[in-house]
Amino acid sequence: MSGFLSEKYQRLTPYTPGEQPRDRKYIKLNTNESPFPPSPFAERFAREAAGDLNLYSDPTAKRLTETIAERYDVDPASVITSNGSDELLNFAFMAFADDAHPAVFPDITYGFYPVFAELNRIPYEEIPLKEDFTIDVNDYLGIRKTIFIANPNAPTGIALPLSDIEAILKSNPENVLVLDEAYVDFGAESAVPLTKTYKNLLVIQTFSKSRSLAGARLGFAIGDPALIADLNLIKYSTNPYNVNRMTQAAGIGALLDEAYFRKNCNAIAKNRAMTVSALEKLGFTVLPSAANFIFARSEKIDGGDLYRILKERGILVRHFTKPRLSPFIRVSIGSRAEMEAFIAAVREIVGE
Amino acid sequence: MSGFLSEKYQRLTPYTPGEQPRDRKYIKLNTNESPFPPSPFAERFAREAAGDLNLYSDPTAKRLTETIAERYDVDPASVITSNGSDELLNFAFMAFADDAHPAVFPDITYGFYPVFAELNRIPYEEIPLKEDFTIDVNDYLGIRKTIFIANPNAPTGIALPLSDIEAILKSNPENVLVLDEAYVDFGAESAVPLTKTYKNLLVIQTFSKSRSLAGARLGFAIGDPALIADLNLIKYSTNPYNVNRMTQAAGIGALLDEAYFRKNCNAIAKNRAMTVSALEKLGFTVLPSAANFIFARSEKIDGGDLYRILKERGILVRHFTKPRLSPFIRVSIGSRAEMEAFIAAVREIVGE
Repeated sequence: MSGFLSEKYQRLTPYTPGEQPRDRKYIKLNTNESPFPPSPFAERFAREAAGDLNLYSDPTAKRLTETIAERYDVDPASVITSNGSDELLNFAFMAFADDAHPAVFPDITYGFYPVFAELNRIPYEEIPLKEDFTIDVNDYLGIRKTIFIANPNAPTGIALPLSDIEAILKSNPENVLVLDEAYVDFGAESAVPLTKTYKNLLVIQTFSKSRSLAGARLGFAIGDPALIADLNLIKYSTNPYNVNRMTQAAGIGALLDEAYFRKNCNAIAKNRAMTVSALEKLGFTVLPSAANFIFARSEKIDGGDLYRILKERGILVRHFTKPRLSPFIRVSIGSRAEMEAFIAAVREIVGE
Repeated sequence: MSGFLSEKYQRLTPYTPGEQPRDRKYIKLNTNESPFPPSPFAERFAREAAGDLNLYSDPTAKRLTETIAERYDVDPASVITSNGSDELLNFAFMAFADDAHPAVFPDITYGFYPVFAELNRIPYEEIPLKEDFTIDVNDYLGIRKTIFIANPNAPTGIALPLSDIEAILKSNPENVLVLDEAYVDFGAESAVPLTKTYKNLLVIQTFSKSRSLAGARLGFAIGDPALIADLNLIKYSTNPYNVNRMTQAAGIGALLDEAYFRKNCNAIAKNRAMTVSALEKLGFTVLPSAANFIFARSEKIDGGDLYRILKERGILVRHFTKPRLSPFIRVSIGSRAEMEAFIAAVREIVGE
């Protein structure tokens, strides 16, 4: 920290991304990436766009926005794209939460939410998950705050039914519900259709997971055009050309290849079921996941120890030190071969 | 605007990027892009990176940062990269300006500075340029505010000598000087070497202009490692994976091709001299530009009218409506053929 840093940020604790060690080759199951390459269309479109890089990208991302709108059956004015979905989450904290509209989210969820709140000096409340790590929808009914919910939640993987989401929306008509659907394609139901009915619903998704474009950085939000206009106001006041040409092109390519997308989502669901079953046979408790990761604990070994021993063996998973999370490891679902290697290693560590 | 937008942003006026009309093919001299394609190395590296997009980009952009550090002869800890330089300018406003350290910049400069100040609710002062559109360095000596100066300035193109910059730095040891060198490669002297002496100097540059990568979105800053650490704190609290894989690769490729970079900068300087000379022969006043654009006025025609007639003829330039700027047009320097077409059109409009 320099002596010049504004007092506003001197006590800010930034988000810690998953580690990206380069000391050796790992089986990487720690940052919820897709084990599958991007669609050949995404790759080809991105390559083709690399020739015109001397010209600015379209700040409105018109073609990409229209392609998203068509795929999700909404109006293009209901769509905004971003440099990864984190950027849009930050914009949503900025636009829709403040002293008069404090933020609220579960105590166990995407670890970036409290950072966005602190960054923007927004008061926030963290509501504890129930003992079984599910959200108690009653906690959010009529709460009259700006609500951030990841659905499925992270790092638990547990999904909230749409009926609960609708109940929250109906009971908080004066506040926005931001639904972070980063993992929705792996087994949960998207609330995008509800955006046509509820003007207070913003759904944020990403191309990083189910569309294999984490390295391209592409997120988007769908909501009432008035909410999208608010987010555009923030965007045009921070970084108008926020999505580069290659990524806009890659996003269009990925959306056109619906068959590849479905095949990969199905493969992840199958590998997840196989992994859960194997871990349960080894005595693990695994939370019911609708995401491309699982959250699992064993009575025989602490999460931190298991993480460290797996890392020594060349397998990276993620461990969180928060007390309720510390017994667990979060394991991204990779290819069948990766999951078999992971299960074999766990079997050796905890015994049959 | 929705009924949900925070009161904080309800009076915010966003930045207006240069128009990107799609109704016909224009000679595009309005957004200071390079007329030359990116280096073949940049293009090839970007294409190669399109295959690994399922994996996140390196949040530290280690290889790119090291390549920048080597090129500019500084320590890698003195470098940070970003999704275009606008993102870093915003981070600098956030980190180094606040109620206790108001921002100050010329009244005529990059139009985004007041937007960043408004966005972050930072008090700011705009100091009028002199009658000849130069900065009076005396206005900034001992001012004890956080100073933002574009060098060369926009839209004037006029550069400030390093001796003036050093005087400002020496007289404001408690405040940061943010030097926006977006256009420095076209004829001004960079202050990067001064970052080793002055802990209060942050130099921000971009790959958009001289390195033909506007569409890839890549900016960087060089300064004392403590300043860079402050900017990283903001980055890791907003968008840690802010530069995608393809752009990191393209940046490395562009930096390796120093010959191509120099050739293009020289071509722009040559085309600029040719254009200035032709306009002066037509009776225009052209401010002395060290950038890849010129700012020119004719007694015969108002800037707005000239802009409109040129647009009708398929040539896009930029016009600003602020009173002191309104007589002028800003013309990006394109290829020789583009500038000849521009001059021919102007000749027809204003007569010999």
